[in-house]
Amino acid sequence: MREVSIVGVGQIPVQEHWETSLRHLAYQAIQAALTNAGIQHVDALFVGNMLSDQLSRQQHLGTLLADFAGLRGIEALRIEAADASGGAAFRQGYLAVAGGAADVVLVVGVEKFTDVVGDARLTAFSTTMDADYEGVNGATSASIAALIMRRYMHEYGVDLQGFAGFSVNAHSNGALNPNAMFRNRLKPERYPMAPQVASPVNLFDEAPEGDGAAALILTTTEKARDMVPKPVRVMASAAATDTLSIHDRADLLYLSAANLSAGRAYQQAGVTPGDIDLFELHDSFTILSTLTLEASGFAEQGAGWKLSNENGIGLQGRIPISTFGGLKARGHVGGATGLYQIVEVAQQLRGEAGDNQVKGAKIGMTQNLGGLGATAITHILGIDSF
Amino acid sequence: MREVSIVGVGQIPVQEHWETSLRHLAYQAIQAALTNAGIQHVDALFVGNMLSDQLSRQQHLGTLLADFAGLRGIEALRIEAADASGGAAFRQGYLAVAGGAADVVLVVGVEKFTDVVGDARLTAFSTTMDADYEGVNGATSASIAALIMRRYMHEYGVDLQGFAGFSVNAHSNGALNPNAMFRNRLKPERYPMAPQVASPVNLFDEAPEGDGAAALILTTTEKARDMVPKPVRVMASAAATDTLSIHDRADLLYLSAANLSAGRAYQQAGVTPGDIDLFELHDSFTILSTLTLEASGFAEQGAGWKLSNENGIGLQGRIPISTFGGLKARGHVGGATGLYQIVEVAQQLRGEAGDNQVKGAKIGMTQNLGGLGATAITHILGIDSF
Repeated sequence: MREVSIVGVGQIPVQEHWETSLRHLAYQAIQAALTNAGIQHVDALFVGNMLSDQLSRQQHLGTLLADFAGLRGIEALRIEAADASGGAAFRQGYLAVAGGAADVVLVVGVEKFTDVVGDARLTAFSTTMDADYEGVNGATSASIAALIMRRYMHEYGVDLQGFAGFSVNAHSNGALNPNAMFRNRLKPERYPMAPQVASPVNLFDEAPEGDGAAALILTTTEKARDMVPKPVRVMASAAATDTLSIHDRADLLYLSAANLSAGRAYQQAGVTPGDIDLFELHDSFTILSTLTLEASGFAEQGAGWKLSNENGIGLQGRIPISTFGGLKARGHVGGATGLYQIVEVAQQLRGEAGDNQVKGAKIGMTQNLGGLGATAITHILGIDSF
Repeated sequence: MREVSIVGVGQIPVQEHWETSLRHLAYQAIQAALTNAGIQHVDALFVGNMLSDQLSRQQHLGTLLADFAGLRGIEALRIEAADASGGAAFRQGYLAVAGGAADVVLVVGVEKFTDVVGDARLTAFSTTMDADYEGVNGATSASIAALIMRRYMHEYGVDLQGFAGFSVNAHSNGALNPNAMFRNRLKPERYPMAPQVASPVNLFDEAPEGDGAAALILTTTEKARDMVPKPVRVMASAAATDTLSIHDRADLLYLSAANLSAGRAYQQAGVTPGDIDLFELHDSFTILSTLTLEASGFAEQGAGWKLSNENGIGLQGRIPISTFGGLKARGHVGGATGLYQIVEVAQQLRGEAGDNQVKGAKIGMTQNLGGLGATAITHILGIDSF
């Protein structure tokens, strides 16, 4: 397979984009990525989206966005793997270039959540879970995350405050990121006073849903060197799955898909967790941050939460996470989330992260989860020294 | 890229499967394909599905079906390109093997339409069109097909009876296929008496929606030769898009995506339309059969309808189409349709088509359309002589 590099990134601020249509959100990110790469045409388009069928009455996004972005005629399709759709779309784009099916590929993730509120959005979101066993019984992502979090607290003797650091870190980094949905800092003592969403999950444990779009341009590493000054190499791409419903899991507190995909990615890239300079993980819930750090080799089982402080996950900490605010403060953008993660790591590696810069970052990792860890897509990105 | 072959096929009868859940439909086709290939494990799963989010409250089908089929942990995702989802999923599976990302891949298409009836299903189906310009104004697939068909009749001076042969042929072949939804033969003189769906589209012009699932196993041609007696080679795979909304098309009567994808496929396979022994095209409407034959090089513009007789498209005709009944009589199975087409061509090339056999078939083509030709995925399959 050919070596693949990122030559363009684009994103728009995550917020409630009530005055911008789904296609315009995507268009803006696509144009930003094309401009960033200095090109106007691509061979193929892969779209990551989760809920536009249900929330915008629009599917068939590959074809719609190819045409709307001025790329009429090219191959285009949509990838769906719940909130891992963005990471999965990036992986398909990567494989198209790596395998030789395309030389230049555009990947865009877009989601427009906030036109629909209340039960309708919650019901749509619950289609990412097992409809026959979870959704039908009224389970929501938050209620299932709550079961896992409660079990974790019991099993390892952790109290609620043990998770505060994840949210504090995310908001601290989000405050510096002009594209973040929430730019307020969070005081640790405010965390346990937040309203409950599904006990013990509170408002600061769960990421907010925002509208947005992020896009990337991929090509061969060989071509990339001639196109842009700082191409970002895709050192590894890996995907794995777990059971969709959590009642089928042998261990509720072990994200086996995250472990499998991270393991495959380390092997492909030839690195270990110790080589990773920053990690954009899927912090849709603080308990998922905890379990992801454990499953991906950054902490022992039961010890992930102990990293949630400035020295552990801060911008200059041992393993910086959510460096632009993560899902929690930059916002959870559904099928675009996985692409925001990759755009952010690319910015870090190119040294263009501004106030959010992780100093000297050379290797970054992203992990995009679908549902409660049912799907996991891991990418490792690197930048060559100059 | 590596050469790729089909080593297993599976399908279930298309009908109203009210007593079988979505996952069980897929499971049966998957097991049939695995059994047919003589294997129990695959490296990755690609799912083609169109409307399960809206009609079954279930998305995230890649992960769900991987687990339910006993393949827990493997890479799995869903591909969506409206009713071209099946063909698009097959293409991603093909690319995974061709590019070296996986050695053995499972592709399954599944759709469960008939639990939901009336307006709700129609509204769901309309999400495949342009929501902001077509869906919002109440346009349906049938009403848009009617605009195209009316224009064609006007432009080329064709009367309604000119399209009868497509439906007669489909029903004639469907009558022989135990997996077909409708097994009744149709007399040409009954055709113009059918109730109107959206004038001039009548009941026999439009394909019925049925529940079903079809699956295929792909591997390298090198491995395939050791696995099964008659592997079917994927000689070409190509995808293209057009505008999603028909008001943006320069020529309402020209399927540019079909033309582009067929052209790319001919080039890759090194064949011409004259080399194709049978063609499973996307006959969701008789007007689409007509336009597809024209766009894919089997007839001049304005002359596609003239092939719609026994000598033209019959089982032993010049270019046999809908050899197992097509979408019209076997049934339109949404995101599974493209995979039924490929399963059927594989059966023809292996000489296992029974009463539906096209004698001496060595090269077959499939073309799966999304919407009114907005997406087109073309595959050319061949069998080596023994």
